[in-house]
Amino acid sequence: MTDTTREQIHQVATRAKEASRILRTLTGSDRLRGLEAMARALEASAGEIAEANAADVSSARAAGMSPGLIDRLFLDEDRVGALASAVRDVASLPDPVGSIAEGRRLPNGVEVSRVRVPLGVIGMIYEARPNVTVDAAALAWRCGNAVVLRGGSAAQKTNAILVATLRRALRGEGLPEDAIATIDEWGREGAGELMRLRGVVDVIIPRGGAGLIEATVTTSLVSVIETGTGNCHVYVDASADLDMARDIVLNAKTQRVGVCNACETVLVDSAGGREAWAQVANALRDAGVRLHVGPQAVAAYGLAAGDVAGDEEDFSREYLSMDCALEVVDGVEGALAHIDRYTSGHTEAIVASAVDVIERFCAGVDAAAVAVNASTRFTDGAQLGLGAEIGISTQKLHARGPMGLEALTTTTWRIVGSGQVRG
Amino acid sequence: MTDTTREQIHQVATRAKEASRILRTLTGSDRLRGLEAMARALEASAGEIAEANAADVSSARAAGMSPGLIDRLFLDEDRVGALASAVRDVASLPDPVGSIAEGRRLPNGVEVSRVRVPLGVIGMIYEARPNVTVDAAALAWRCGNAVVLRGGSAAQKTNAILVATLRRALRGEGLPEDAIATIDEWGREGAGELMRLRGVVDVIIPRGGAGLIEATVTTSLVSVIETGTGNCHVYVDASADLDMARDIVLNAKTQRVGVCNACETVLVDSAGGREAWAQVANALRDAGVRLHVGPQAVAAYGLAAGDVAGDEEDFSREYLSMDCALEVVDGVEGALAHIDRYTSGHTEAIVASAVDVIERFCAGVDAAAVAVNASTRFTDGAQLGLGAEIGISTQKLHARGPMGLEALTTTTWRIVGSGQVRG
Repeated sequence: MTDTTREQIHQVATRAKEASRILRTLTGSDRLRGLEAMARALEASAGEIAEANAADVSSARAAGMSPGLIDRLFLDEDRVGALASAVRDVASLPDPVGSIAEGRRLPNGVEVSRVRVPLGVIGMIYEARPNVTVDAAALAWRCGNAVVLRGGSAAQKTNAILVATLRRALRGEGLPEDAIATIDEWGREGAGELMRLRGVVDVIIPRGGAGLIEATVTTSLVSVIETGTGNCHVYVDASADLDMARDIVLNAKTQRVGVCNACETVLVDSAGGREAWAQVANALRDAGVRLHVGPQAVAAYGLAAGDVAGDEEDFSREYLSMDCALEVVDGVEGALAHIDRYTSGHTEAIVASAVDVIERFCAGVDAAAVAVNASTRFTDGAQLGLGAEIGISTQKLHARGPMGLEALTTTTWRIVGSGQVRG
Repeated sequence: MTDTTREQIHQVATRAKEASRILRTLTGSDRLRGLEAMARALEASAGEIAEANAADVSSARAAGMSPGLIDRLFLDEDRVGALASAVRDVASLPDPVGSIAEGRRLPNGVEVSRVRVPLGVIGMIYEARPNVTVDAAALAWRCGNAVVLRGGSAAQKTNAILVATLRRALRGEGLPEDAIATIDEWGREGAGELMRLRGVVDVIIPRGGAGLIEATVTTSLVSVIETGTGNCHVYVDASADLDMARDIVLNAKTQRVGVCNACETVLVDSAGGREAWAQVANALRDAGVRLHVGPQAVAAYGLAAGDVAGDEEDFSREYLSMDCALEVVDGVEGALAHIDRYTSGHTEAIVASAVDVIERFCAGVDAAAVAVNASTRFTDGAQLGLGAEIGISTQKLHARGPMGLEALTTTTWRIVGSGQVRG
C-alpha cells in the first residue's frame, strides 16, 4: 500500500464522516426526500446501469464465473426497477432515529432519556452483488448514517455507476452526497485501510463467505459485526411428527440452497429407529440432495446409492448446494453436543412434540435463532417482521440475527436539568 | 508465552464456557441463591481477605504507589462488608434474562419473539481495584454469565482470595464454580492470550486508563467494549445563567476528580465577554483548580497567577486531578468544533438558556451522554436509575454510556411453529 492510497482512503472516509455530521441534524423528512430522489434517479438511469452491468457480466463470464454468481451479479432494466422499489420500501419503514429507548425523571428533577441516534459511518464490505450496494446505501441513509462501500471487483463498473447515480440524486436535493461513497477503485488494499480507520469509521459490516468474515474480524481495528455464515442444523427428535419433520427438513434444505438460513446438517434421534431415519433420508434423496452420512449413521443404517460417507469436515461445511450432512445422535443431548461443536451461531431447528425436549433444546442452543417445528428459513428480516435487513448477525454483541434499521443506530443519553449538580 | 501457559489459559476459559452452558439453564432463583452465598462467604472471610489485602498494600507502598491508588486497592473488614452489601444490591436488580425485547405472531401463525439471554463468557481486564473483582463477578453471574478476571498485579493476593471465596460459595450451593475464574497468576501474557480466544470468550471489557483500553482494542480478536476514558467538556454559552454555570462547572470539575465523568475542559462563549470568563475562571481558581488556559483565551484575557498556558496537548488530556483546560470559543459552533476534535465520546455538557442553542448542541454532539444545564457527573449507572454498572461504554456498538445488567446480555430469536415452512 502506498502512502497515496492510504491518504486517498482516509480522505474518502473523512468526507463520509463530515457528511454523517450533517446527517445527524437532518429531519426524517429530509432523509425520506433523499430516498425518493435515489429511487427516481435509479429509474432514470436504468438503461445506463444495465449497460455497465452487461460489461461486468461479460468479463465475469469470460473469467469463468459460475451461473449462480452471475445471476447475483446480473442487472437488467427490470431489476434496476426492483432496486428502486426496494429503496421506496426502505422509506416506508418506521424511522428509528429519535425514538426513546427508555427514560425517567430522577428524584432531583433531572429528566433522563436514552435516545436512538445514527451510528455514524458504516463500512460495508461485500461480494459482487450490486443489489447490496443499493440496499446498504438506502438502509444506512434511512437512519442517518454515511456508508463507505467496497463491493466485489467483478461488479466494479456496475457499482461505480450505481454510486454515482445515488450521489447525484442527493446532490440534486442539496443533501450531502459524501454520505454514499465507494472505495472499489482501491481494491483489497483499500478495504484493508478502511478497517484501520478507528475513530473515523464506526463499524465494519462484512457480508459474504466465511473467509471474508474471518479476514475482516482478525484484521479490523474498527468494530465489526459478523454476518451471514450459516451452518444451520435441523434435529428430528423421536417425538417428532414424521410428516412434519420431512416437510421442514426439505424446506430448510432445498427451498433455496444458496442462502445462510438453509439447513446444512440434519440430525436424527437414534430413538426414532430405522423408520425415522429412512423417512428423512429418503425424502432428501428423492429431492436430489446428496447426503454426506456421518459415521454413526453409516454404522447403524449403511449408505444408499448416491450417498457419501461424511466426517468432521462434512459436519463443518456450509454447503450452499444440494448437499447435506446427515447423522444419528442420541436424543436431544446428543443433538446439543453436536450442534455446540459445529454451530456457526445462526439458526438451529428442532422438530419434536415432547415439551420437555423442546425446552431443553431451546435452553441449550446458543444461536441467533432457534426454530421449533418451523423451517430455519424463517430467520430473515422480512419474514420476522423487521422489514429489510442489511445482513444477519451471527455474533452476540450489538445485534444478533437479522439486522434491520435499529441495528444501524446507537443511543445517547440526554440529561436535562435546571442547574442540578451531584451531591 | 510458552505453550504451557497458552494451554492453561485455554483450559480456564474453556471451563468457564462449560460453566456458562450450565448457567444458561439455571433459573433466576438459582442465580439469586448463588449471590446470597457469595455475600455470606465474603462476610465470613472478611478477616482473611483484609489480611491478604494488607500484604498487597504493604508491597504497593514499598513500590511507591500513590495514595490515591493505594486507597482504591485498600480493603479492611468494613470495606469487605460493603462488598457483600453490593452483591446483595445486585441481587435486588430486576433480572433481564428471559425478558422479551419484541415479539409478534406472523400471518402464517408462527410466533416469533426476541428473548434476552446471557452473553456467555465475559473477559474482564482491570486495574488494582479489588472491588471490581467482586462487582464484575456478581453482575456477570446475576444475568447468567461466566467471567474470567484479570486484575492489576498489585492486587493479586487480594484477588486470589476473593475469587477463591466466591468460588467456594458457589460450590457450596452445588452451582458451577468455574463461572468465576481468574488468570491473574499468568500476568499480562495471560491477558494477551485471553484476547485471542474468539469462540470461547464472548466479549472482553477493559476497565482502566486510556493505555489499557487502546492496547486491548488493537490486540483483541474477541469483541471489545471500550469503557471509561472521559475527556468531558462543559460549554458555557452566552445565554447561560452565570451562577448556574459556576455551580455546574465546579461540581463537574471538583466534586470527585479521579472519575471518568469529571469535567476536563471548560469552554466559554466569547460572546459572554470578560464577565462570563472571569466568573468561571475565578470560581475554578478559588476552588484550587490549576487552569491550563488555551491560546484564544490567553490572547483575550491573559493569564492569572497560578494559570499555565495550554495547547493541543492540554485539550487532549484526561487530567483526573485538580487541573482543567479552559478556552474561549465562538458560540455553540465553536464549542462543537472543539468538542468534535477532542471528545472521548463520554459526556458533553452545555449551560445555556437559549433553546435553539441547546438544540443545536444536542444534535451536534456525538457522545454517550449530553447534559443540558446539569453536571457531567450524572453519567453513572446508579444516578441514571440503571442500578450497578460494570463500566461506562464510550463506544457506539452494543452498549453506550453506563452499562447495567442488560449490557451483559444478548438476545436470541425464538421461532415457534406447528410445521410451517417457507413458501
